[in-house]
Amino acid sequence: MTWTAPRLPRLDQRVAADLRALIDAKAKPLGALGRLEDLAVQLGAIQGTTAPRADRAAILLFAGDHGMVDDGVSAYPQSVTAAMVGMILDGRASINALAKTVGAEVRVIDAGVAADLPRHPNLQSAKVRAGTRSAVREPAMTADECAQALACGARAAGRAIAEGAEIIALGEMGIGNTASASLLLHRLGPAPLEACIGQGAGHDAEGLARKAAVLQRAAARSDATEPFEVLRQFGGYEIAMMAGAALGAAALRRPVVVDGFIASAAALVAIRLQPALADYCVFAHGSAERGHRLMLQILGAEPLLDLGLRLGEGTGAVLAMPLLRAAARLVTDVADLTEVLGPAG
Amino acid sequence: MTWTAPRLPRLDQRVAADLRALIDAKAKPLGALGRLEDLAVQLGAIQGTTAPRADRAAILLFAGDHGMVDDGVSAYPQSVTAAMVGMILDGRASINALAKTVGAEVRVIDAGVAADLPRHPNLQSAKVRAGTRSAVREPAMTADECAQALACGARAAGRAIAEGAEIIALGEMGIGNTASASLLLHRLGPAPLEACIGQGAGHDAEGLARKAAVLQRAAARSDATEPFEVLRQFGGYEIAMMAGAALGAAALRRPVVVDGFIASAAALVAIRLQPALADYCVFAHGSAERGHRLMLQILGAEPLLDLGLRLGEGTGAVLAMPLLRAAARLVTDVADLTEVLGPAG
Repeated sequence: MTWTAPRLPRLDQRVAADLRALIDAKAKPLGALGRLEDLAVQLGAIQGTTAPRADRAAILLFAGDHGMVDDGVSAYPQSVTAAMVGMILDGRASINALAKTVGAEVRVIDAGVAADLPRHPNLQSAKVRAGTRSAVREPAMTADECAQALACGARAAGRAIAEGAEIIALGEMGIGNTASASLLLHRLGPAPLEACIGQGAGHDAEGLARKAAVLQRAAARSDATEPFEVLRQFGGYEIAMMAGAALGAAALRRPVVVDGFIASAAALVAIRLQPALADYCVFAHGSAERGHRLMLQILGAEPLLDLGLRLGEGTGAVLAMPLLRAAARLVTDVADLTEVLGPAG
Repeated sequence: MTWTAPRLPRLDQRVAADLRALIDAKAKPLGALGRLEDLAVQLGAIQGTTAPRADRAAILLFAGDHGMVDDGVSAYPQSVTAAMVGMILDGRASINALAKTVGAEVRVIDAGVAADLPRHPNLQSAKVRAGTRSAVREPAMTADECAQALACGARAAGRAIAEGAEIIALGEMGIGNTASASLLLHRLGPAPLEACIGQGAGHDAEGLARKAAVLQRAAARSDATEPFEVLRQFGGYEIAMMAGAALGAAALRRPVVVDGFIASAAALVAIRLQPALADYCVFAHGSAERGHRLMLQILGAEPLLDLGLRLGEGTGAVLAMPLLRAAARLVTDVADLTEVLGPAG
């Protein structure tokens, strides 16, 4: 199986200019809605319309396990991934609570959980394998598996969009996946490994030192720098699917709302595979996980929110959705200043 | 008419501790929802419950005119206040578009607009006078008017709460009211006047210099420092009503979501009148209006959002509402970690 990054339409600069003019004419001081105005221009330019929409949002939550967990990169055992997926399907995890407040739909995709998951209407099975191989000792995926995961992600986005999603948000669940994200940032940033490693789900100082030592061994095993190969060596199935979903959503002209450290690592991979993707991404928040600021800086991204979150699951992405909706409605729902001041105003 | 600041119950520290323990037990890494966790504790402690609620939100949007506009403090004529109120009642202003995205209700209160406003089901008339006197030449209000405005604000909050509001947000519309807010910050911060003056609805350099010169004359006219007297000298009817509404909401144990520079000036006045109010305030965003950062710093407040807004109308407060709701649902809707890891986990 081979995989080729999709071609992405360049954002429509005429639509962007039209949107800016529409917003400048609204009944408010010029520029007074700050970043919402830029967001509205981005949304409309992506969707190719001066009437952007962001009401119908799908959160694609990809779950997968990581072979490196056996080498001690996480404070939790691998079984927590399946248990948390169960909790999410049961509607009682943090992401469910937050999604409920914004009326967004959560779709869980089993990208590679190391356990059999029960059937559930909100669960799509796209399991590539029951967890990756340990990137400390061998490539995390075969090239076929990596290509399969990228394609599955794009299909998941395509399905959500076909069913009406106007914006796509990326979230994840996977014990050990901050370790994988750290390696991706290190190699694709590129950035010094030690600046890429954080406490993940909750390491103490000793656990963090162990994680760093394990990741140094993993990084030393392969000198790959080509993005597909880096993803194959160090990534995870859920990360590859998020990268594929981002590219698939962009190819269908949908904004991609990126959650925290791990989702951003997937976006980094996808942007290295197809640089034009960068214009389609909305980075929801600056995570408290070490390395995320650096990653955003490398991507030239300014996150919308800064609330000290470091949970994943798509929680930060969901909190940014009201901002996208507000931006869209600024364009479509607000009257012009001439109606307030009169045509000569 | 005399006015006395209401006594406010101290936040319940036992409830706060219970909330912190509940949140720490949730199915997520410890502290992983960052500021949402602190917000949840604050909400519950204010409402006096370990099941905080923030679904039903009322935006109280107070409108008033300012005599100083005749002295050249604003880039727009006074008539724009009434025109914008009309636009808000018509549902076509920025605040309406944003409120729609979060499902919040906008109630407009005519605190002192210098025009007769048409009757409208969403408009409460509480007009003290058709605009304040010019604070450049005389006190903006009489003591009676100031007391009346404070009491009206508290009544407006009380009415919204009696009708079910679980959180109260403060917004405003009033040409010239950044000038008034600057004087309040200068005197009650206290802070050097020049650090308190910004471009408002859109001054150029020349307009800003004129505004600064006018405000220096106003500040020189009275050396008041007592908060009620400062409010009377330099405030506006809409600002006094916001201060009263904040105190009234807190007295009924409701969180007060404070919008930008002008709403924060009202909160500053109210906190100087009754320092215990500070614990009840949630500062929604850091405005791009010069002086707001300084004001927040003086109040020891860290705003939730930082999006370069400087519009008013309650727009920033509305954008923060999903965060309050998410915080509340974190406490009430999310399962415990023991359900994931098992009781021994």
